[in-house]
Amino acid sequence: MSARITIALDAMGGDDAPGIVVQGAEIASQRYPDVQFLIFGHEKEVLPLIEQTTRLKKVVEFVHADDKVLSDDKPAVALRSRRKSSMRLAINAVHEGRADGIVSAGNTGALMAMSKFVLKTLPGVDRPAIASFFPTLRGESLMLDLGANLSCDADNLFDFAVMGNAFARCVLGVQEPSVGILNVGSEDVKGHEYLQVASSMLRQADLPGEFVGFVEGDDIGKGTVDVIVTDGFTGNVALKTAEGTAKLISEFFRQSFKSSLLASLGYILASSALGKLKKRVDPRLYNGAIFLGLNGIAVKSHGGTDAVGFANAIAVAVDMRQQDIIKKIREDFDSLTRETLNEQAAFE
Amino acid sequence: MSARITIALDAMGGDDAPGIVVQGAEIASQRYPDVQFLIFGHEKEVLPLIEQTTRLKKVVEFVHADDKVLSDDKPAVALRSRRKSSMRLAINAVHEGRADGIVSAGNTGALMAMSKFVLKTLPGVDRPAIASFFPTLRGESLMLDLGANLSCDADNLFDFAVMGNAFARCVLGVQEPSVGILNVGSEDVKGHEYLQVASSMLRQADLPGEFVGFVEGDDIGKGTVDVIVTDGFTGNVALKTAEGTAKLISEFFRQSFKSSLLASLGYILASSALGKLKKRVDPRLYNGAIFLGLNGIAVKSHGGTDAVGFANAIAVAVDMRQQDIIKKIREDFDSLTRETLNEQAAFE
Repeated sequence: MSARITIALDAMGGDDAPGIVVQGAEIASQRYPDVQFLIFGHEKEVLPLIEQTTRLKKVVEFVHADDKVLSDDKPAVALRSRRKSSMRLAINAVHEGRADGIVSAGNTGALMAMSKFVLKTLPGVDRPAIASFFPTLRGESLMLDLGANLSCDADNLFDFAVMGNAFARCVLGVQEPSVGILNVGSEDVKGHEYLQVASSMLRQADLPGEFVGFVEGDDIGKGTVDVIVTDGFTGNVALKTAEGTAKLISEFFRQSFKSSLLASLGYILASSALGKLKKRVDPRLYNGAIFLGLNGIAVKSHGGTDAVGFANAIAVAVDMRQQDIIKKIREDFDSLTRETLNEQAAFE
Repeated sequence: MSARITIALDAMGGDDAPGIVVQGAEIASQRYPDVQFLIFGHEKEVLPLIEQTTRLKKVVEFVHADDKVLSDDKPAVALRSRRKSSMRLAINAVHEGRADGIVSAGNTGALMAMSKFVLKTLPGVDRPAIASFFPTLRGESLMLDLGANLSCDADNLFDFAVMGNAFARCVLGVQEPSVGILNVGSEDVKGHEYLQVASSMLRQADLPGEFVGFVEGDDIGKGTVDVIVTDGFTGNVALKTAEGTAKLISEFFRQSFKSSLLASLGYILASSALGKLKKRVDPRLYNGAIFLGLNGIAVKSHGGTDAVGFANAIAVAVDMRQQDIIKKIREDFDSLTRETLNEQAAFE
C-alpha cells in the first residue's frame, strides 16, 4: 500500500479565497478519500470555514500564516518579503517533504518565483514551464509554456517537449504522445531560426511517441498533436485567444437561440444535450496550470475559479503525484543525457 | 463623378484557380457595376471561363501571362524568376496606374515580396504588414501583422498602429478607433520590452481615437479594441488559433444536436436562426488579407476560398480604393513626421 498523499494549499490566494479553497478541498476530499490536506492561511478567516466542512475537517492539518501574497505583488518582491505568507509556507512544506504538492489560486508570477527558488529545477532543466491541457476535436492536448518564459531558445523548447511528453504519458495516459512545435507554417523552413533548431534537436532525440515537427494555431483546436510546445508569450496569447473565441462562438449560438420563438423552442428541446456540451467545455474542468520542470509538484489554479474549479486543480496535483511525474521527468532527462554522452563517446 | 475603378486580378493563384477567380469577379462585377477588371492568366485556361460569364465579360480586359507563381515558390525565387507570371504582371499594372489594386489567391510570401518590390512602401513605413478583420462580440476588429514580419521592433508596431488606425477610420468607418497592443497582460510592465517602448510611443503620438495600451488574447473575441497590433508571428498564431477554436466549438455544438432525438428536433426548429449564425461567421465574409504600408492596394485572398470568398476579397480592394486608404495613410505618416519635427524644433 502506498503512503497517503498530502497536498498543501495556499488558502489566501484567489479572488474568492479562502472560501473557494476550503470548499474546493472539501469536494476533493470526497473525491479522493485517501488524500490529506495541509492548509496554510490566516486562522481567523480559514479555521471557521474548515469547521463548517463535513469530510475535510477530518483529513486536514491547518497552519496559521500571518502574511499573504497580494495579487499585484511583483514576483521578486514577493520572493523577498513574503517569506511568512501562506503561499511560501505551503511551498516550503513540499520542499520539506511534509506535502507532496502545492496548489494555489494566487499570484502566478510569485508562485513561480517562490516555487523555483524553494523547490529548484530538476537536473537538466534550465527553466520550468507552465502547462495546461484543454479540449480538442480528438480529446485533450497539453500546451506549454503558457507564460513562465516570454522568450525561449531552442534548448528551452527541447526541455519543454521532454517534460510535456512525460506528462502526456504519465498523467494523460497517452502511451506514444505526438509532439509539435507551434509555428506559422508546417514546412521545416518556416518561422524563427530557434524553432528550426529545436525541431532538428527533437527529430534526433528519439523521445517516446512521435515528433511531428511544426504545427499551426488551428492545430490546437484540431488536436493534431498531444503536446504543443511554444514560448511563454505565444502560448499565453494562443491560450487566451482560444478561450476568448470559445466564449465568442458560444455567445453567437446563445444569441441565435434567442433570435426567434422557433429557435427558443429548439433550444428547449436541445437543452439537455447542450447542457452536456456546456459541461464538456466547462473551463473549470481544465483548471489547474501545471508548473513542469521543478523538483516538486506545484499547480496554479485560475484566480477567478470557484470551489469546483479549485477541486479540479487539486485533482491535477493528486494525479501528478499518483503517476510520479517528477520521477518520470527526472528519468527522461537522465536517459537523454546518457544517450547524448554515449553518442559523443561514439564519435570520439 | 469619380473615375471608374479597375482591379487587377491574378487568375492563376489559389487552389481552385482560375475558376474561382473568374467566377468571383463575375459576382463582384454584379455587386459593383462601376468596377472594371484587368485579368492576368493563361489564355487557354482563363478566356473560355470569361466567355461563360454574363456581366464580367463586358467589363474585363484580359492579358495573357505565360508563367505563374507556384504555391511552393520561395518568395525570393518568385521575385527573381517569375517576372512574366500572372501575379507579377497584375502587380505591375497597379504600379503603372492601369489598375487601382490587385487581388490574388496565390502564394502569400511571393505576393508580398513582389508587391513590396514593385509598389514600394509608403514614405515613413519601414515594413508593410498583413491585416485582416474578423467578427467580435462588438462587431468587427482589425488585427495586424498576421505574418509578413515574424520579428518586429517598437517602430514597426508603431507603424502598424498608424496604418491600422487609418484603415479602421476609412474602411471600417470607425471615427475614433481604439487601438491596443497584444500582450500577455494589460499592465504597463508586462511583456517584452519592445512592446513597452511601442506602447509609450503610441501614448505620446496622439492618433485619432484612443490608444488603450495592452490587450490580451481573449480581448480579440471580445472586440475590446478596433485595432489589435502585434508582430507577424504572434498575429499569425492568434488568428489561426481563433479559426481553429471557432471550428472546434461549432463542431461540439453540431455533435450535441446529433446526440439525441430531442436535440435533433431542437436543431430543426432552430435551423433558420442557426443558418443566419453560420452566415454571420462565414469565413468567406472575412476573406481578403490586406497588405498595408505599400504604395498601392494589394489584397491576398485565402488560397482555399471559393468564388464567393474571392468576390469578398475583391470587395475589400474596391473599398480600400473608394476610401482612398493609401492617401489617408500617407497623410497620417506625413502629419506624424511634421508633429515630431515641430516637437523637436520646440526643444531646440
